[in-house]
Amino acid sequence: MHLLVDVLGIESGGKPIVFLNNSDAGEIGVTASGRVSLRAKKEITAIVNISTRTVKKGHIGISEEVRQLLGRTPQKIDVEISAFPKSLQFIRNKLEGRKLLKDEVFEIVKGVVDGTLNESEIASFVTALHIRGLDLDEATSLSQSMVETGNQLNLQNKVIVDKHSIGGVPGDKTTLLVVPIVAAAGLVIPKTSSRAITSAAGTADRAESLMPVTLSAAEMKKTIKKTNGCIVWGGALDLAPADDIFVKTEYSLYIDPLLLPSIMSKKKAVGATHVVLDIPTGRGAKVKTINEADHLAKDLIELGRRLKMHTHCVLSYGEQPVGHSIGPALEAKEALEVIMNEINVPDLVDKACKISGAIFEITGHKNGYAMAQEILRSGRAEKKLRQIIAAQGGNPMVRPRDIPIGSETIRLKAKNDGKLLWINNSSIVEIARMAGAPKDRGAGIVFNKKIGDNISKDDVIFTVYAEKSRKLSRTEDLIEQLNPVGIGKRTDMIIHMVTEIPEIKRSFVLER
Amino acid sequence: MHLLVDVLGIESGGKPIVFLNNSDAGEIGVTASGRVSLRAKKEITAIVNISTRTVKKGHIGISEEVRQLLGRTPQKIDVEISAFPKSLQFIRNKLEGRKLLKDEVFEIVKGVVDGTLNESEIASFVTALHIRGLDLDEATSLSQSMVETGNQLNLQNKVIVDKHSIGGVPGDKTTLLVVPIVAAAGLVIPKTSSRAITSAAGTADRAESLMPVTLSAAEMKKTIKKTNGCIVWGGALDLAPADDIFVKTEYSLYIDPLLLPSIMSKKKAVGATHVVLDIPTGRGAKVKTINEADHLAKDLIELGRRLKMHTHCVLSYGEQPVGHSIGPALEAKEALEVIMNEINVPDLVDKACKISGAIFEITGHKNGYAMAQEILRSGRAEKKLRQIIAAQGGNPMVRPRDIPIGSETIRLKAKNDGKLLWINNSSIVEIARMAGAPKDRGAGIVFNKKIGDNISKDDVIFTVYAEKSRKLSRTEDLIEQLNPVGIGKRTDMIIHMVTEIPEIKRSFVLER
Repeated sequence: MHLLVDVLGIESGGKPIVFLNNSDAGEIGVTASGRVSLRAKKEITAIVNISTRTVKKGHIGISEEVRQLLGRTPQKIDVEISAFPKSLQFIRNKLEGRKLLKDEVFEIVKGVVDGTLNESEIASFVTALHIRGLDLDEATSLSQSMVETGNQLNLQNKVIVDKHSIGGVPGDKTTLLVVPIVAAAGLVIPKTSSRAITSAAGTADRAESLMPVTLSAAEMKKTIKKTNGCIVWGGALDLAPADDIFVKTEYSLYIDPLLLPSIMSKKKAVGATHVVLDIPTGRGAKVKTINEADHLAKDLIELGRRLKMHTHCVLSYGEQPVGHSIGPALEAKEALEVIMNEINVPDLVDKACKISGAIFEITGHKNGYAMAQEILRSGRAEKKLRQIIAAQGGNPMVRPRDIPIGSETIRLKAKNDGKLLWINNSSIVEIARMAGAPKDRGAGIVFNKKIGDNISKDDVIFTVYAEKSRKLSRTEDLIEQLNPVGIGKRTDMIIHMVTEIPEIKRSFVLER
Repeated sequence: MHLLVDVLGIESGGKPIVFLNNSDAGEIGVTASGRVSLRAKKEITAIVNISTRTVKKGHIGISEEVRQLLGRTPQKIDVEISAFPKSLQFIRNKLEGRKLLKDEVFEIVKGVVDGTLNESEIASFVTALHIRGLDLDEATSLSQSMVETGNQLNLQNKVIVDKHSIGGVPGDKTTLLVVPIVAAAGLVIPKTSSRAITSAAGTADRAESLMPVTLSAAEMKKTIKKTNGCIVWGGALDLAPADDIFVKTEYSLYIDPLLLPSIMSKKKAVGATHVVLDIPTGRGAKVKTINEADHLAKDLIELGRRLKMHTHCVLSYGEQPVGHSIGPALEAKEALEVIMNEINVPDLVDKACKISGAIFEITGHKNGYAMAQEILRSGRAEKKLRQIIAAQGGNPMVRPRDIPIGSETIRLKAKNDGKLLWINNSSIVEIARMAGAPKDRGAGIVFNKKIGDNISKDDVIFTVYAEKSRKLSRTEDLIEQLNPVGIGKRTDMIIHMVTEIPEIKRSFVLER
């Protein structure tokens, strides 16, 4: 059926959407959320919205996404109901509990990326993966398909290393130290990172306080050629783009069945040959127990093997923030001070050197930890970081005090003497986000005390920074409500209460 | 955060949707598909779309749905991130396999109806119900919640009867006979029907060839008061509106876990006290085996008991179309001819009298079948139908030849002698839909032969009717491809082949 094209000037968040008049939709035989084929010079598939008033009979309203896919906008376009997509048949198979083969997984991932599958169908697939589970064959197929449906970096180096954290622990600026340490030793590390989704800062957010991180693939390659390393935002590179779509659905549903393929596809897409994965472990982290973390590590290593990447995992202590600071600018500042050897943050330094050391050892070096320590202490890591900053277009002379921090502050003081017994990571993340992080880069939290420290009444436990006083005042209420730290005696026996009133969990660690 | 309101003039299919600029969304802390609270005079919840170009910073674009919910359109509106909805917590519980309690189910159904839950979340819930299953407690809660979140008819009669077919067999115009037969006997039958979703005609589509079916609740009540019965489209009455939303999702996913609550909530919403349900059974129907149908019947009866409706089920032969005709006008014509005793269609008459008889017997009458036959043969059923037509605003003098039928035809002729061994219902539905049904009311199929009939080469098996020659020509190809009927000897042993090439099932019986 031929319809006149109305450009609506509306964006639909990446999905190709068209608007049809009710009557034309009936004629074509399609319902809302159904699919039509649009045929002008190109043929594309779009998802249907039905509208009785916006679009007149005989017309079709197209979103910006559709306009771009069509290339030149035709006056008239041939619109027919789409054939039943094979990908949906395969999703239905998974719903029934059937294992998916590589070709079938590829068809689904392609449908996700090209917009053939609508939101409901993707949500159903993610739900089915969550309930039915996916085995390592399926995880491998998903990883490969996610790589194949996106860009790949194609560096020519024989050894390419990468690191990644499963996430879940606030203040984890380890990557800002690991990349320069590893690159300073001559290893190629094309590090891509994500922005925060549910956390207070992603590595891309942290790095952005030091340098531009939105680079093209060509600029990224140039940086690596010059310096061996980079710290860029992965979102602009279209590496494993299916993952970005899956993540949105997972976030909405508070589940993350695609954790493994998501992580490993991003590593494979940059061409990594050797990978070290950090699994922060503890009650406040994504992975709660060491046993659980060991199982996850085994799966990740096996998945790595199938994808032809040597993989080691590091289980790290995840019950409290890493270092003292949380929030993009505050974390960048702390990392810069540490790499300049201006301050000593023992847990951050230990973690960075252990992970760097693991990277050295998986690529055949000995005494990796000592090697990393030496590179950090000697100033070679700082020099390398400044080279990377310069190559990515930042100011290589940047000093910690140049990084703007929110000027509005409140402090949490101890109400009694004792020891700091615990810090609730998810409450800390909520507080930092309420204060404005990661959107307000200068917002966040700085801890004066960490678990095990002796506390006297009125000691400052942490300081909250915000850029806007409005956000700070609402943070104050939240702190009162959340009870984010525990101070007591070492002989206090009660861990916490579980009460009758169902507590709705507001925080969810999606970062990976 | 206060934003200026832009009325976009866009409808979003019932869901309250707003468009935010990327930067404002970040400031509010919400992502695409997230939820915001809009506070003007009223407070409502809306789902967020992110747009970088359509909506300027400091503005919020609102859909027609949101404009209507807000009442008067304010210039400025306070927009904040919504609290985490409890309903989503309960959906997550179901994902984990936990049984849902009444209050929890109600919260979810309310979230579906008021737009708090987005499409992905609803799809996830429907998927979880499909995979995890729902027990009769949950089915009861769902039925009750679906009734409570919609309108209810509130007739004052002590006995109110209703009938329903699980669906899946084409040509099933039984309701057009049952309602007048039952009403002629003095029973109150407030019949609401749906339009076709995946079939060639719904009862509302069929009835519409005889009379208006889009009545308000008040008009429906007036009709019933006058005539004891009605045949109206349920979609305009807002009875169990959650079901209409669930159906869309189910259709998209080709699953229907909500079958039982969907049927029973619609019956409860009209206030039925006695219900007879038809379960067409056979390989071409929704329910394939008698054993399966018996199980379903037991569940439906128990669900009825819990909802305080006396329920009987009728298992009927579902391997071929009921009567000879398929398509809205053709079926209306056949029903009218039968009720006028102009033609004899034994299977249709038997089914209509058996179901009417079951309704008579469940309300305490004896010899229900004979009673129904008598009402039909005597012309009292025809008289009652014409009263109902008049009361609903149609022409009570309507004759079969007044009903317009498509003038374009093709015929399927037998290629060999033999017996008609089988008719593939779903192929028949596909062919009728390809010819234009239900949108083109005069399109459809008329069978000359039925299963078991003797066939000679070149006998006409069926005739396809269409209103548009374009649709007829594409139907011809489809018939060739589908092989919709089997003619052979009674000693032919092969039922069908299952081959290597995966066959993608295009048809799906959602009607219920």
